Amino acid sequence: MRQSELFTKTRREAPSDEASRNAELLIRAGYAHKEMAGVYSYLPLGLRALEKINGIIREEMNAIGGQEIHMTVLQNPELWEKTERWSERQVDNWFKTDLKNGWELGLGFTHEEPVANMMAQHIASYRDLPVYAYQIQTKFRNEGRAKSGLVRGREFLMKDMYSFNASEEDLDAFYERVKEAYKRIFTRTGIGEKVFLTFASGGVFSKYSHEFQAVSEAGEDTIHISREKNIAVNREVLTDEVLADLGIKREELEEAKAIEVGNIFKLGARFSEPLGLVFTDEKGENKPVIMGSYGLGPTRLMGAIVELLSDEKGIVWPESVAPFRIHLIALRTAKEGNAFYEKLARQGIEVFYDDREDASPGEKFADADLLGIPLRVVISEKTLREGKLEVKSRKTGEVKMMNEEEACKLPE
Amino acid sequence: MRQSELFTKTRREAPSDEASRNAELLIRAGYAHKEMAGVYSYLPLGLRALEKINGIIREEMNAIGGQEIHMTVLQNPELWEKTERWSERQVDNWFKTDLKNGWELGLGFTHEEPVANMMAQHIASYRDLPVYAYQIQTKFRNEGRAKSGLVRGREFLMKDMYSFNASEEDLDAFYERVKEAYKRIFTRTGIGEKVFLTFASGGVFSKYSHEFQAVSEAGEDTIHISREKNIAVNREVLTDEVLADLGIKREELEEAKAIEVGNIFKLGARFSEPLGLVFTDEKGENKPVIMGSYGLGPTRLMGAIVELLSDEKGIVWPESVAPFRIHLIALRTAKEGNAFYEKLARQGIEVFYDDREDASPGEKFADADLLGIPLRVVISEKTLREGKLEVKSRKTGEVKMMNEEEACKLPE
Repeated sequence: MRQSELFTKTRREAPSDEASRNAELLIRAGYAHKEMAGVYSYLPLGLRALEKINGIIREEMNAIGGQEIHMTVLQNPELWEKTERWSERQVDNWFKTDLKNGWELGLGFTHEEPVANMMAQHIASYRDLPVYAYQIQTKFRNEGRAKSGLVRGREFLMKDMYSFNASEEDLDAFYERVKEAYKRIFTRTGIGEKVFLTFASGGVFSKYSHEFQAVSEAGEDTIHISREKNIAVNREVLTDEVLADLGIKREELEEAKAIEVGNIFKLGARFSEPLGLVFTDEKGENKPVIMGSYGLGPTRLMGAIVELLSDEKGIVWPESVAPFRIHLIALRTAKEGNAFYEKLARQGIEVFYDDREDASPGEKFADADLLGIPLRVVISEKTLREGKLEVKSRKTGEVKMMNEEEACKLPE
Repeated sequence: MRQSELFTKTRREAPSDEASRNAELLIRAGYAHKEMAGVYSYLPLGLRALEKINGIIREEMNAIGGQEIHMTVLQNPELWEKTERWSERQVDNWFKTDLKNGWELGLGFTHEEPVANMMAQHIASYRDLPVYAYQIQTKFRNEGRAKSGLVRGREFLMKDMYSFNASEEDLDAFYERVKEAYKRIFTRTGIGEKVFLTFASGGVFSKYSHEFQAVSEAGEDTIHISREKNIAVNREVLTDEVLADLGIKREELEEAKAIEVGNIFKLGARFSEPLGLVFTDEKGENKPVIMGSYGLGPTRLMGAIVELLSDEKGIVWPESVAPFRIHLIALRTAKEGNAFYEKLARQGIEVFYDDREDASPGEKFADADLLGIPLRVVISEKTLREGKLEVKSRKTGEVKMMNEEEACKLPE
């Protein structure tokens, strides 16, 4: 894509009311627009990065048998009354709205109730199990406080998967597969080393749930990390009993702020029973379907990546998430710039081409640093005299002079 | 994909409260789930079809210079008060909700206000124009009546494009390009012959807007078609003056019910002026940006395709929209079926494979008719004896016997 054709402009300053580093950078770079606190729109480059994240999540969910669906925002209270999650007393961050006839509806903050209700149409027998369904869909939470940018949104994108098994053993086995899939997602999106599997409070059905916590000063959670065991414990459950369960001594724990980038939860019959999601087993007996739920927010993950990987000059995207792989900059060398851009584009290389004639070299370099595309390739009169291109890594700052042929093979 | 692994099941009966043919078929086939009147979730095969439609729309919007963005559901009243579209008196189908601090927010039914407000961050000079931005995003309309299935949703997917030009002439030229892009979309999604460009009421800025109306008994609009001129007039604007404008005689008009599958609208400065979206022209003068807006609902289009192309046995997808291109059915020939399925899948052909061992041939054939995949390929002991496969067109019913090599080249 040609930068001259992109409608977004970079900005020196973020909105004065924006307190978070991730939103500040994403807004300044023209990736996002703030509609109000905790509510962001995604502009062309931001949407490209977000779709890269979604693509990685889809691949990993499909690889463990997930089938993609798309459920609705509007929620029927009847289902949520059955599970005792409708009233404000039970759930305090609902957004609610009214139909013209006065009936109250909710805006979904999660989808256990509608997905269990829907599955009752499709699951009748043990032969219909297991089922793993997921969606990437917009959710709403009426947060009193929304000051962490994309990390805590009132409106945000969520990947939520739900598992439906015949037995606890089957759920346990699938749960472990999701754990591994989540680890792969965080590794592939460039923050794997900073994410800890964290023990958190369970429910009626299981003693613990698990969170994936990315260590960051911008985080709203506090975790206690055991580097030796490569796990962590959420402060909320840090008791002697839990430490004994996990074989961890309190002394070895390291306290850190962290962003919860994913969580997985065994639900058992908590939702299937009140919603009538039952199946007939091999012996002809009716049993409730055993459920699990698995959340991972793509927009929050995008915010976490920016928090963790940016530097004082701007964003530093990992290659897998960057909106483009190469940022080509022509400095008063439009002819050669155009030719090389066309060449890269023909090869299917994702290249963002700064062909702007009214921007100075300094502006172009500052924009490239702010936008954070992994490789910056400069064509100038100077590089042309040497018959080379200047290739700089956004991450390491390393600069190499290459000929066209070598640069065409980028990124290796 | 193997049918034995798909979690959805087909049904003989639709929900008793479902009055529309499109939703009835989509629910029975397991493409959609009804959450409540006018509110549908999309299940794996339905989401695949919907993504095919979205893909066609994206291609056509990108081809005329559209840049994709993604805006929010939650709407800030301040913007809508400026354009006098906030109060119930002004707009009667808002869904509204409240923040914890009591502030009222809206759920977007369209996005002229936020997109104009956002563009004021990115457009300052005539050099920044034109800009064409679009999104495919979930919208909400508080319809009193929602009995037409996907054709009139309370929650629905909308592709909305907004154009930003320096002059009316530039808007006019782009408007014509959108018209052609819309025609291509309806042709590519298989309903082009039934869609008429229809003159409808304009606004302050232009005498007419244009709708794309698909002739169907299930439609909620009434149009008057001139077959000779290949255009139509919405009943709402059928006056002698309009007929004179278009050079049409009243006698030649043919009345028909129709589904509005798209509409395009010249907005002029209706939104840019109150929202402060101005630019500096070549002479250094400030002028309001000239806008247009262009709607096309993918979920409504999916409903219209089902209304228009289905028959008494079920859905008949056009190839471009079908969730798969081939429905392979093995009748007690699992070994040969598996081998042929693997062969097609390796070639990247989208094949849905009915490998179910507990379904009778009659059930498999009925499901194939209901699901509406364009080509049904049967492998049975009988076809194997002939060294052939039976290939049937869902649309024409035509049956051909082919060998494997010929069938591998399907669809031609």
